[in-house]
Amino acid sequence: MKPVIFLLVLFPILGFSQQKADSIFIKKISDEVLLNGKAYEQLRYLTKQIGGRLAGSAQFTRAVEWGRTTLQSLNADTVFLQECLMPNWKRGGVDKAALVSVSNRKQSRSLNILALGNSLGSGKKGVTGNVLAVADFDELENRKDEVKGKIVYYNYGFNATNLRPGKSYGEAGVYRRNGASRAAKYGAVAVLIRSLTEATDNHPHTGAMAYNDSFPKIPAAALGLQDAEYLWQLCRQNASVQVSLSTFGYFLPDAIGHNVVAEIRGSTNPKEYITVGGHLDSWDVNEGAHDDGTGIVQTMEILRTLKALGYKPKHTIRFVLFANEENGLRGGDKYAKEAKLKNEKHVFALESDGGGFTPRGFGFTTSTDKLKKIQAWAELLKPYGVFELTAGGGGADIGPLNKTFETPVAGLQVDPQRYFDLHHAPNDVFEAVNKRELNLGAINMAALIYLVDKYGL
Amino acid sequence: MKPVIFLLVLFPILGFSQQKADSIFIKKISDEVLLNGKAYEQLRYLTKQIGGRLAGSAQFTRAVEWGRTTLQSLNADTVFLQECLMPNWKRGGVDKAALVSVSNRKQSRSLNILALGNSLGSGKKGVTGNVLAVADFDELENRKDEVKGKIVYYNYGFNATNLRPGKSYGEAGVYRRNGASRAAKYGAVAVLIRSLTEATDNHPHTGAMAYNDSFPKIPAAALGLQDAEYLWQLCRQNASVQVSLSTFGYFLPDAIGHNVVAEIRGSTNPKEYITVGGHLDSWDVNEGAHDDGTGIVQTMEILRTLKALGYKPKHTIRFVLFANEENGLRGGDKYAKEAKLKNEKHVFALESDGGGFTPRGFGFTTSTDKLKKIQAWAELLKPYGVFELTAGGGGADIGPLNKTFETPVAGLQVDPQRYFDLHHAPNDVFEAVNKRELNLGAINMAALIYLVDKYGL
Repeated sequence: MKPVIFLLVLFPILGFSQQKADSIFIKKISDEVLLNGKAYEQLRYLTKQIGGRLAGSAQFTRAVEWGRTTLQSLNADTVFLQECLMPNWKRGGVDKAALVSVSNRKQSRSLNILALGNSLGSGKKGVTGNVLAVADFDELENRKDEVKGKIVYYNYGFNATNLRPGKSYGEAGVYRRNGASRAAKYGAVAVLIRSLTEATDNHPHTGAMAYNDSFPKIPAAALGLQDAEYLWQLCRQNASVQVSLSTFGYFLPDAIGHNVVAEIRGSTNPKEYITVGGHLDSWDVNEGAHDDGTGIVQTMEILRTLKALGYKPKHTIRFVLFANEENGLRGGDKYAKEAKLKNEKHVFALESDGGGFTPRGFGFTTSTDKLKKIQAWAELLKPYGVFELTAGGGGADIGPLNKTFETPVAGLQVDPQRYFDLHHAPNDVFEAVNKRELNLGAINMAALIYLVDKYGL
Repeated sequence: MKPVIFLLVLFPILGFSQQKADSIFIKKISDEVLLNGKAYEQLRYLTKQIGGRLAGSAQFTRAVEWGRTTLQSLNADTVFLQECLMPNWKRGGVDKAALVSVSNRKQSRSLNILALGNSLGSGKKGVTGNVLAVADFDELENRKDEVKGKIVYYNYGFNATNLRPGKSYGEAGVYRRNGASRAAKYGAVAVLIRSLTEATDNHPHTGAMAYNDSFPKIPAAALGLQDAEYLWQLCRQNASVQVSLSTFGYFLPDAIGHNVVAEIRGSTNPKEYITVGGHLDSWDVNEGAHDDGTGIVQTMEILRTLKALGYKPKHTIRFVLFANEENGLRGGDKYAKEAKLKNEKHVFALESDGGGFTPRGFGFTTSTDKLKKIQAWAELLKPYGVFELTAGGGGADIGPLNKTFETPVAGLQVDPQRYFDLHHAPNDVFEAVNKRELNLGAINMAALIYLVDKYGL
């Protein structure tokens, strides 16, 4: 019976005439974005002219400059940079793996891999070893005596029955992040993981890992799903399966990076901030289209649209292109640290970092009271495809703001079924983005920003 | 305040323990489809091994045979064919158009076109004429004296501000269907239309048209959007723009086609029917993946899943692969006619023909009371992404059933933003379908069929 109580209590909060005015303004936002939106062409530039932009790369620096000049051209009141140091990991070469022998019969079949981000390379000589294929950490622990000298392969995949693939990603992600050290503890010479995806293709998916300093820092790479399945079956059927792999990852000293911040100054509460953003960095192996070029250009589009409509916000609205979400979160940390230093008051922060797919809702990390206030706006967003305003959500880059000030944070929730088909993989490219879906995300985000600005939280 | 009243009234209809049992069974459906689903591989076969399957083509006949054997292999209680005659339109060649001159200066630039379905060709000689570009029928009427001897180009496009592109399709569709005769009435020698899409690419989109027998049957073709925009600007800026086009469409005598029907016989009401289906035919220029291969394989998957779960329906459930939706609707007509002849009782019919994209709801054509009963099931479907159970909807093939018996009909409503990017265009191919989105459609359809079977309507 929850929904009944909920609606009875909340509907009166917004008066009918106010709701009508809001509905009209949100339709204006929608029309402006759908008729004159620049997000799609901006994304084309970011993905095709700049491309992949890992922290520390020349492309990331170019993206910062592009972000700064683009935000300026959109007539923000101020545009400034926030400097931070970022990890500077280099892939260092073309990752390679191949089957060498099966039950001591020579084989030669290449396997499609990508070294995990932050992993250290095998060097040119590569690593060769018999594969110990395990289903999960439990099997690894049960067979720890067999690990020494082996290449451990973790076959832990997505649970297809999870209706939201993000849940599967959460469950399987620990193999990418910690799998190397868990195996190195028992003498493994390298690890391979099943890519964190349910894709029907064979693209491997990279992503951040971290070593436990207590154990040797062994190479770690992800296998495309067709090769992963092949290797898994092979190992189940044969006593000895030998694989060689070469990866080349290394770290340079930390690089200088920047958050790019634009503002529309508040008319009545200029020292109270509403933040909206995405992250400017991406992995190196793709164009960073859905992750998170779409969040970047949606952020820009919200600025453009509010300006085009002559909207004068009460609060100061910040449009932030965050540095280094993928392998360090240094941009998000810097943003919160600066806010703390300057004793800023942060009312709300919103991030789009789930891909530029069709919007379905927003997830909030905030108090029950504030969430109820937000949920009273539900009917205003439904025409634009947003039906879920639920507890839980935010974004990695605005997490530090929430931790520092308990700022209410939210994340745009898009239809999640396609995201992990291309997340951190070579096929996260411009062509995978649909212009209208991208624009609908920007519309709903702009509408939410408008409502929070108008009614506060 | 509507939602409040609505929920207060309806929640008690389903008792808590019943709702729990239903929730458990629907999760079983979901797990079965997501773990063991065959729809995606069936779609691969239908699109890649059979391909486009316009009524009257050899591929359509192959598709019928494939459909029959596949439904048999899924252990339907009965599989039978319903014969019907179908229009037998042939494209007859490779449609071509080119710019010939601009303000009497020779030009040579090809334009990307597809003849409209059911249109008659220009023949090899082609048609050459100056272009009269009009925004809409109003402009055509205002300029009717200029039409004679011209190729009329209609620039009527989608209205980007419509949040559901289906609305734009409804508004612009009349130019495809009736544009030729409207212009022929004033002496036009051919028509071109702006393709019915908002796609960012240049694929032309075909689709059914019809002639008014009172006027000459002139060639009619659709232009890809980039070329459409180019031609429109050119005509606005130049007094004379000459274009030539060659199309080759013609009709053969009607062909014999078939609906393919499978049944699971009802245990308590075997003579009461619930129908679920999609259409087996497609246009000739693509693989008919989203239109409507996905509806076909979802229909098959529902049969497979109900059988796999050992479900014994009360009513007889019919799984129907309809013939000839695209350019005749003869399959849907035949199905209703047979039902009438046999005096069958049809309780409910459901179609999936909006593409195999992520599901968002169902639209119903039925009485208010029946819709309210259905809406009481809303919470059961939400975990699977379906949030909208609304009035209005169905499917072309089950329309005749609704007309004949007032059978309640429904259509699966998927996220609509991508559909018209590929609808009736060469890029409606297997690769555009996401396996999980396809499966989620089948899950929600199976769940709805289960609920209607269990509780009646």
